[in-house]
Amino acid sequence: MTPLSATVVTESIRGIEPPNEIWRTRARARLDTLTKPLGSLGRLEDLAAQLVAIRHEHLVLPLNKAVYVFAADHGITAEGVSAYPSAVTHQMVLNFLTGGAAVNVLARLHGVALHVVDVGVAADFDNIEGLLHHKVSNGTKNMLREAAMTDEELSRALLVGAQLANEAAVAGHTILAVGEMGIGNTTAASAITCAITGSAESLATGRGTGLDDAAHARKIAIVEAVLKKHFANSTSPHPLEVLRCVGGLEIAAMTGMILAAARNRVAIIADGFISTAAAALAVALEPKVEGYLIAGHRSEEPGHRLLLDYLKLTPILDLEMRLGEGSGAVLAMSIIKSAIGLYSQMATFTSAGISEASL
Amino acid sequence: MTPLSATVVTESIRGIEPPNEIWRTRARARLDTLTKPLGSLGRLEDLAAQLVAIRHEHLVLPLNKAVYVFAADHGITAEGVSAYPSAVTHQMVLNFLTGGAAVNVLARLHGVALHVVDVGVAADFDNIEGLLHHKVSNGTKNMLREAAMTDEELSRALLVGAQLANEAAVAGHTILAVGEMGIGNTTAASAITCAITGSAESLATGRGTGLDDAAHARKIAIVEAVLKKHFANSTSPHPLEVLRCVGGLEIAAMTGMILAAARNRVAIIADGFISTAAAALAVALEPKVEGYLIAGHRSEEPGHRLLLDYLKLTPILDLEMRLGEGSGAVLAMSIIKSAIGLYSQMATFTSAGISEASL
Repeated sequence: MTPLSATVVTESIRGIEPPNEIWRTRARARLDTLTKPLGSLGRLEDLAAQLVAIRHEHLVLPLNKAVYVFAADHGITAEGVSAYPSAVTHQMVLNFLTGGAAVNVLARLHGVALHVVDVGVAADFDNIEGLLHHKVSNGTKNMLREAAMTDEELSRALLVGAQLANEAAVAGHTILAVGEMGIGNTTAASAITCAITGSAESLATGRGTGLDDAAHARKIAIVEAVLKKHFANSTSPHPLEVLRCVGGLEIAAMTGMILAAARNRVAIIADGFISTAAAALAVALEPKVEGYLIAGHRSEEPGHRLLLDYLKLTPILDLEMRLGEGSGAVLAMSIIKSAIGLYSQMATFTSAGISEASL
Repeated sequence: MTPLSATVVTESIRGIEPPNEIWRTRARARLDTLTKPLGSLGRLEDLAAQLVAIRHEHLVLPLNKAVYVFAADHGITAEGVSAYPSAVTHQMVLNFLTGGAAVNVLARLHGVALHVVDVGVAADFDNIEGLLHHKVSNGTKNMLREAAMTDEELSRALLVGAQLANEAAVAGHTILAVGEMGIGNTTAASAITCAITGSAESLATGRGTGLDDAAHARKIAIVEAVLKKHFANSTSPHPLEVLRCVGGLEIAAMTGMILAAARNRVAIIADGFISTAAAALAVALEPKVEGYLIAGHRSEEPGHRLLLDYLKLTPILDLEMRLGEGSGAVLAMSIIKSAIGLYSQMATFTSAGISEASL
């Protein structure tokens, strides 16, 4: 019998096509008329052309930008994998709602609508305002002992992200960033990275929010044990099995959002290690998603490099950040906004009466 | 007899002190109270701490930002070193004044006051409005035949930049970007790079706005001949002699602005290859300037890397841009603004009631 999660994925990606190459060529042609040496805006030109190819139109400002921050807890924290207690997930969600976290500041500064989603925090928010209430469960199970979630929980988490992406597309958003908050989720992302890319646990497992050497060694041993428990007999497990056994509810929701965003021709900015793990799972499930992805920044977490290589993505920013929350993705949106501003507002050689290259 | 230019420099840097380490420590202490894992904002934390150390105060938004674009022509263009005719300097200045160039778009988007300065364009602007008229001469002489400028011209160009920096400080600007427009000025920057860092001409000389292989080889040979003509008998020529013999009027003006900005405790964002050559000359003249410098981006011009190494600067952005005009520096200002926004607006662990690290 086909698992429910597979049906959700099939539904989310129905009719998806890669970005349009005719529009990318049109964008390149327009860029070459602008008053600058050919190609001299470098990656800003690539970004503008990618967005035009995604949207099938010559974009102008304002872009309609949003960031979704998915929060969930992780059973694996019982093994002492994080420098912070699990309760911080809940506390940080409250911080998001009162506007005090890094992603709040960046979203305000760069004109990005911020949505905070409870997809699995192990605490009750009652009906607190400003939060999108989509709790699937009170966090995942301890993946060292059992699968992190059931297929039904996985399906519901995927759907949370997919439905929010659909709603964002209807609301006119052209570009979405995904971010997360979940104490323990670098451990899940490390396990996903190993399962998807075949990397060694010691290369894919970092210090998270700040582990010392001994705690870091213990975390690596736990990731090794987790992979052995779930995938000892499988060299390339199915991405949905990876997500169910060693994922997180926020990672599943981001995977669902990325799949559905691509289907809706909405560009997706991945943030750091955790959200890029979701992006890698989305691409493993549907390779056509690749052209809709933009890597916002390069995280200091070592596993992030492995995922970026797997996805063949070069991040926009490399600022040694390792915060999550979508912070790097939102910061990268200021560069993307600049790319579209240049694309749509610069004078052309003809309009400005400027000589073109003569050599 | 002391040359006039040396007197101008002495005057511009009188009383200059490095950024204040007590304030940098205060900034670090504040950053560690914010609701994020220690150090997790990476270089954004370094930038905030640097600016606080420069300004001697806990900064808040808005920053008062300006970019100065210095325009001048180069006699060396007679040797065919550029893909564009010299007339483009004049045409691009007009483009700046009508708002159609890349730096105009970026300055508008990021709230940066833009000033365009004629310090040596080989064309008459009459009294056109919106331009800062500080023409020293109609461009430099051909440095393959003679010194690019006289000591008096050098002095006047340095003073143009220094006086504008003084005025910007009085006007309350806390952060300045320097940019330039000058067909032929990558050739001058390559010659400066070799003279200051001792690099080989073939490593310091790039394709500028887009030379083919043959034209690139010719440009390298010209830079070699220029250096041989002026510095055959000097392994480490004085920075002012370098500027006078192989510099440009816009490069001299940027050097003057950087020196005086540091004296006024104003942070300076260098843009690409040309403005970083000016920064290297400023540091060669007064090493205390170093702490006031920020590298906005890494240019594709190969000589830029040599200068960044010389200055021990890591650029904020690396987007394969090679445009000049201050475009990369202004784009980097959006990151600096974000750094100060985070510094001043994030909640603290105490105010948000969030648990600190327990491991």
